[in-house]
Amino acid sequence: MKKLINKPGDEVKEMIEGMVLAYPDIVRRVPGWNTLVRAGAPLRGKVSIVSGGGSGHEPAHGGYVGRGMLTAACAGEVFTSPGVGQIAAAVRAVDSGSGTLMIIKNYSGDVMNFGAVSEVVGADGGLIDSVVVNDDVALDDPAMRRGIAGTVFVHKCAGAKAEMGASLPEVKAVAEKVIGNVRSMGCALTSCIVPSVGSPTFQLGPDEMEFGIGIHGERGTRRDRVRTADEVAGVLTGACMDDLRLKAGEEVAVMVQGYGGTPSMERFILYRAVNRLIQEAGVRVAVSLVGEFMTSLEMVGASVSLLRLDPELRSLMAAPCETIAMRQC
Amino acid sequence: MKKLINKPGDEVKEMIEGMVLAYPDIVRRVPGWNTLVRAGAPLRGKVSIVSGGGSGHEPAHGGYVGRGMLTAACAGEVFTSPGVGQIAAAVRAVDSGSGTLMIIKNYSGDVMNFGAVSEVVGADGGLIDSVVVNDDVALDDPAMRRGIAGTVFVHKCAGAKAEMGASLPEVKAVAEKVIGNVRSMGCALTSCIVPSVGSPTFQLGPDEMEFGIGIHGERGTRRDRVRTADEVAGVLTGACMDDLRLKAGEEVAVMVQGYGGTPSMERFILYRAVNRLIQEAGVRVAVSLVGEFMTSLEMVGASVSLLRLDPELRSLMAAPCETIAMRQC
Repeated sequence: MKKLINKPGDEVKEMIEGMVLAYPDIVRRVPGWNTLVRAGAPLRGKVSIVSGGGSGHEPAHGGYVGRGMLTAACAGEVFTSPGVGQIAAAVRAVDSGSGTLMIIKNYSGDVMNFGAVSEVVGADGGLIDSVVVNDDVALDDPAMRRGIAGTVFVHKCAGAKAEMGASLPEVKAVAEKVIGNVRSMGCALTSCIVPSVGSPTFQLGPDEMEFGIGIHGERGTRRDRVRTADEVAGVLTGACMDDLRLKAGEEVAVMVQGYGGTPSMERFILYRAVNRLIQEAGVRVAVSLVGEFMTSLEMVGASVSLLRLDPELRSLMAAPCETIAMRQC
Repeated sequence: MKKLINKPGDEVKEMIEGMVLAYPDIVRRVPGWNTLVRAGAPLRGKVSIVSGGGSGHEPAHGGYVGRGMLTAACAGEVFTSPGVGQIAAAVRAVDSGSGTLMIIKNYSGDVMNFGAVSEVVGADGGLIDSVVVNDDVALDDPAMRRGIAGTVFVHKCAGAKAEMGASLPEVKAVAEKVIGNVRSMGCALTSCIVPSVGSPTFQLGPDEMEFGIGIHGERGTRRDRVRTADEVAGVLTGACMDDLRLKAGEEVAVMVQGYGGTPSMERFILYRAVNRLIQEAGVRVAVSLVGEFMTSLEMVGASVSLLRLDPELRSLMAAPCETIAMRQC
């Protein structure tokens, strides 16, 4: 295992420390927890948005904390849900009195732990609600579908709505609209190595890849030989378009994102084919995001996410935000 | 070789096509060339800034084209200088009549080809000048030092100065001030694979790394066993601080950047140690950039760059810019 780390097991804490040292104007840390909250939170009169999950998906979720996106993000250990105590502390740290929406990715640990917090805070009279993101079309049963890169669109739109001073039901309605209209699918050319494990989570032959991969190094739904970028774009884009039943004349936001080990060059080569396929279907690409948004450590591979837009979502996608993920030079 | 590409040899053209499809509001292509120019260029009354080099360093340089940074970026084949014809076409495409500054990284091919363009355009009566960036402290002789990630600071500050309407000599003076005050050093844990070659440029054992690496997969200046992130930070940061002769009370901008295959988590773990070392020396960190800024395809490794700031450079670093590299959500 070759990694730029110190002691395995310290990596999440040290990453969080690095993020706060680098961007103290955007985030601060909840003392005692690997949780980032927006500098200046709680914000009177604004709904708080709390998310999180296992680490290893950076910039998700700490990189999305800031004006116009998340109010807090709980970082669990690598690929491990944050605990109930950590999430409850985050909700309390950003409680503005206007209510909290929790954005949960559909994994049993996350659903259970965030759900428990919802009950505890609700029983205390706190105003709290949640949504569960399940954008991964690789699995047929919507109840089984995982939350993957499309979650970032939920953060963006719900965050923009909250920033405008909308109520908790209004912010939740936007989050649910995004969830109803976003689909994603990923593929991997390699596994990744969890630092505390030290060896790859699964093995792929030198000419093999997997489609329908999750974001925790879990196996995909179908193994294949390595395909060209154009062929990969066809599989991933087609699955999203079919499941969304996109029709000519509609408008989408597109995300093509690498899992950590895929270089920028290949992300743009893949995006080129994705964009063409969408245009050929008579669908308009209104927003494009090409980068790294929901990674799996250093895994090589990429995912495609499509979000069907309406005027409200289009305007929320265009709203300003100020987070670590968008702070490049 | 596992890459999300189509036919080896087509990757640069297809990447450029993808960038224009994704961000047509920021960049357009010079017809017939793998060159990106700022949408709306040439800009009357403003000095143009042209850079470029071999591909494989994305987001450098096309990702830095836009308001407040570069006016044009020429992308050569992977790790290969753009030719004289391509550079000359770029200079002509963005000629505003106010002059052009070329920002060249110190490699013989780049220096020769950009230099030839300077002579041709100058002989035609065009107002053109250039600077050569040599921020890599891994080599002792300044004449031999390569231009690496610190080049992005030159793009940023010179671009901001040009955006304000400064003259060519004023823009050049800012670029030279940055070059005089920026130092970088990198390390690698793996090599990278050039698509048209198909095998790693060099080999490293399972417990080996190299310090003083270049950005083209060239060997470093010293091989070592794999060190901890804190130890690596010490080597890279120390080399930059020593060469800059930084003194307590001074102020710097810091860049910690991955070469393409290093996950975000590790970049922040490294940044944490870099920040602490700088603070321990009594130097103030005024600006932090943690991400991917000057990569080598999918190479695993990172570099540290330090720029000594004065009030002018600090203000130029803070000026707004709108480029693909900064357009995340």
